[in-house]
Amino acid sequence: MEFTANQIASLANGTVEGDGEVKISTIAKIEEGHPGAISFLANPKYTHYIYDTASSAVLVSNDFVPERPVKTTLIRVADPYTTVAHLLKMVESMITPQPKGIEQPVYVAEGVELPDDIYLGAFAYIGKDCRIGKNVKIYPQAYVGDRVVIGDNTVLYSGVKIYHGCKIGNNCILHSGAVIGADGFGFAPTADGYDKIPQIGNVEIEDNVEIGANTTIDRAMMGSTRIKKGVKLDNLIQIAHNCVVGENTAMAAQVGVAGSAKIGRNCMMGGQVGIAGHITVGDNVQIAAQSGLKESAPDNARLFGAPAIDFKAYCRQAMYVKDLPALYKKVNDLVKSHKQ
Amino acid sequence: MEFTANQIASLANGTVEGDGEVKISTIAKIEEGHPGAISFLANPKYTHYIYDTASSAVLVSNDFVPERPVKTTLIRVADPYTTVAHLLKMVESMITPQPKGIEQPVYVAEGVELPDDIYLGAFAYIGKDCRIGKNVKIYPQAYVGDRVVIGDNTVLYSGVKIYHGCKIGNNCILHSGAVIGADGFGFAPTADGYDKIPQIGNVEIEDNVEIGANTTIDRAMMGSTRIKKGVKLDNLIQIAHNCVVGENTAMAAQVGVAGSAKIGRNCMMGGQVGIAGHITVGDNVQIAAQSGLKESAPDNARLFGAPAIDFKAYCRQAMYVKDLPALYKKVNDLVKSHKQ
Amino acid sequence: MEFTANQIASLANGTVEGDGEVKISTIAKIEEGHPGAISFLANPKYTHYIYDTASSAVLVSNDFVPERPVKTTLIRVADPYTTVAHLLKMVESMITPQPKGIEQPVYVAEGVELPDDIYLGAFAYIGKDCRIGKNVKIYPQAYVGDRVVIGDNTVLYSGVKIYHGCKIGNNCILHSGAVIGADGFGFAPTADGYDKIPQIGNVEIEDNVEIGANTTIDRAMMGSTRIKKGVKLDNLIQIAHNCVVGENTAMAAQVGVAGSAKIGRNCMMGGQVGIAGHITVGDNVQIAAQSGLKESAPDNARLFGAPAIDFKAYCRQAMYVKDLPALYKKVNDLVKSHKQ
Repeated sequence: MEFTANQIASLANGTVEGDGEVKISTIAKIEEGHPGAISFLANPKYTHYIYDTASSAVLVSNDFVPERPVKTTLIRVADPYTTVAHLLKMVESMITPQPKGIEQPVYVAEGVELPDDIYLGAFAYIGKDCRIGKNVKIYPQAYVGDRVVIGDNTVLYSGVKIYHGCKIGNNCILHSGAVIGADGFGFAPTADGYDKIPQIGNVEIEDNVEIGANTTIDRAMMGSTRIKKGVKLDNLIQIAHNCVVGENTAMAAQVGVAGSAKIGRNCMMGGQVGIAGHITVGDNVQIAAQSGLKESAPDNARLFGAPAIDFKAYCRQAMYVKDLPALYKKVNDLVKSHKQ
Repeated sequence: MEFTANQIASLANGTVEGDGEVKISTIAKIEEGHPGAISFLANPKYTHYIYDTASSAVLVSNDFVPERPVKTTLIRVADPYTTVAHLLKMVESMITPQPKGIEQPVYVAEGVELPDDIYLGAFAYIGKDCRIGKNVKIYPQAYVGDRVVIGDNTVLYSGVKIYHGCKIGNNCILHSGAVIGADGFGFAPTADGYDKIPQIGNVEIEDNVEIGANTTIDRAMMGSTRIKKGVKLDNLIQIAHNCVVGENTAMAAQVGVAGSAKIGRNCMMGGQVGIAGHITVGDNVQIAAQSGLKESAPDNARLFGAPAIDFKAYCRQAMYVKDLPALYKKVNDLVKSHKQ
Repeated sequence: MEFTANQIASLANGTVEGDGEVKISTIAKIEEGHPGAISFLANPKYTHYIYDTASSAVLVSNDFVPERPVKTTLIRVADPYTTVAHLLKMVESMITPQPKGIEQPVYVAEGVELPDDIYLGAFAYIGKDCRIGKNVKIYPQAYVGDRVVIGDNTVLYSGVKIYHGCKIGNNCILHSGAVIGADGFGFAPTADGYDKIPQIGNVEIEDNVEIGANTTIDRAMMGSTRIKKGVKLDNLIQIAHNCVVGENTAMAAQVGVAGSAKIGRNCMMGGQVGIAGHITVGDNVQIAAQSGLKESAPDNARLFGAPAIDFKAYCRQAMYVKDLPALYKKVNDLVKSHKQ
């Protein structure tokens, strides 16, 4: 796990300026550089760091022109960001465990056929009539209820819980503590409390979805709660029953989406956003952190505030609120001069 | 799992208009109807859907009078909502697994007597001197610490964690990842940090309580954190040490209640509400989503905002804030005309 | 587990007034006193309770002078709060399980040496090449990934999940459902969705840290997410990748800290606070519950609001907003009188 700058340059079709034999064993941000690390310069805002970085080498663009002498070794490449992404993937494949096989004990119910290339960690549980795809990794203490379907190459980290009848697509990653398919929160008021409304639907998660640690997605009352292709959910998010989250929508941690909300494609939500139930959010909508959306929003909306309104309108409103002391003074002066 | 409209009508003491032999295999919302599904019409707001629904049959009230021809089969019953609730329960009992018996391996400590009709999933853990009621279901990988008491018919889904000494009532449902009885957050400042204050109390949950996925309820410092009869908590809720949540109070996801707060009966809280510590909330209080309650609230209060105030007062305040641009213009016009 | 008032007084170097032979079997708050319980009086606000408390004995300061006759037995000590903290610890050591030894089955990978005095609960998982300190307690169904390091006297409660390569210090407590080291939320936009950015760093938690139930701390993209000495995190908190939380900082439940934020020492954050990514929070900063901090904050700041500003400024602003109806009236009166 140690390379020279020359070796990295040849992997990345790059050219070296400076000491090509310097040893590289890790990757670091340019502002946190240290000997033995390689950094990269993609954002011009960070250019000033290159003159003093302690990193042993820095990936720069072919057209980078230093304004002063640089002490570190430069590796010139077509696109430093792409190169570092490749390096990260290479390092990841070296340092991240890639477990295989079936540890013991596990519990696999009747009617389940496990693919040859599965990883099934100790104390994992697979219920009746599940269908498990190729090259799936199910880490220790994960729970897969009866009749669950899991697509190829999907990873369930330790302690993921999937209730009966849910479907997970191909190439998904579910992090520890994620709970998929618990009962939706549905109760009918009675004379002396509540009757539980049965939640007979399921959750369907399409391909290429990543679900963060301890995030919860409830099963539908009827039909399916749907998480569409390419959705990325951070940690501790709540998606209530019968919601639909559109393709490639991304949500930061602790967002909460109430029941039956329909969210479009390519939306982005900041942390701790709340979305009311039964509303529709269009495509490409962006909502700032901690906002609370109470009403449906059209495509391309930029929203902020609680209740959330147009981003710029909210910023103006905030300015007006901030200027209130001056307004009060003006009004009081007017009153005073008027009385005179 | 397939019925004719005639069969459903006879189960529900209803009468059929249209094709009584049409086949029904599932339930769908009237606006999401499709062939093979039965829908229901309880809310007049949805009446317009009945003329075009693709559902094969719709449950309507005996006194429903269509304004135009209806293509679907109608099943007339006394109360469509009650009928559909019964149908949902029937379907649920058919499609939801009802596991029984003891899977292997499990860990059951000394001094524990398991009832004959228990379900104990693989990798479940039952600590010393626990008392487990009749017809209890403890799903795989659940943890029940020493001296825990669990009432009859209670369900702990996969991965529920109950710390030592806590008590769970009859007919409760705890969803995956719920943590009951972790230490309350109590620390005494010292010269160089914090001393942990021992949390020697427990959590007591009464009958008919439902606790959502990944919700956490901390044990009391002394005495008990109490969740009273019929309380319904959604996912990812935090109930801190020494809180009391009154009978039939319902909280939506991601609500947080700080230490020693006392909450009355029949309250309703929207998602992401925060309740300050050491305050008292009366009975029948309703708090809108994302509000932050800093002070005690009387019975029947309707609250909104952060800090939360009377709902209508907050809505008025929000209107005033929204109208600020016009107010600024008015004031500036006055100043201008005054100077002239 | 029953003592007389005389016995407690002699343990605590105290003197008894009243019935020294009264039996004490538990501790209760003075306002919730009952026979058999001992209470304490440290805060003068609670003095009035002492005349009617049902507790069998009350710890008071040596210089306490009652204004009326007291029915309960008094035990006079130098510092009632310290004495009760000692009593709580004594009671805790009596009633809290102190498990030892290795239950079966567990999974311990190759290359792991377990200390003699470990507690390893059933269905716990220890990955390859982990290093486990002395007197560590790993409760049932906890997961410790490959190459994890755990310091002496640390406790992992049931269902804690620690991903590969993370480090936990000495004397730490991690509550059930805490997830340490899941992937940071990092994705690069592409033409048709997102590419996952590998998260090759880890999480490092220093000594004397307590982590609440279902709290999540993500691994760094590169380098480490750092939780420094003495940090106390409540339940359901999100700490994103590459954050640093300074020594003895305490956060209440449901706080969310976005990526690469650096937080100083001895800070205190109320519940549901949100901290934006890439900002720096100084030492001794206090942030009121539900606030949203968007910009860096200096040492000793007191902050409130969303977006968070100076605490007092925010309270003034809130007053101005509350007084808006009066301001509108004033302005409208001016307009009216001006027109005349």
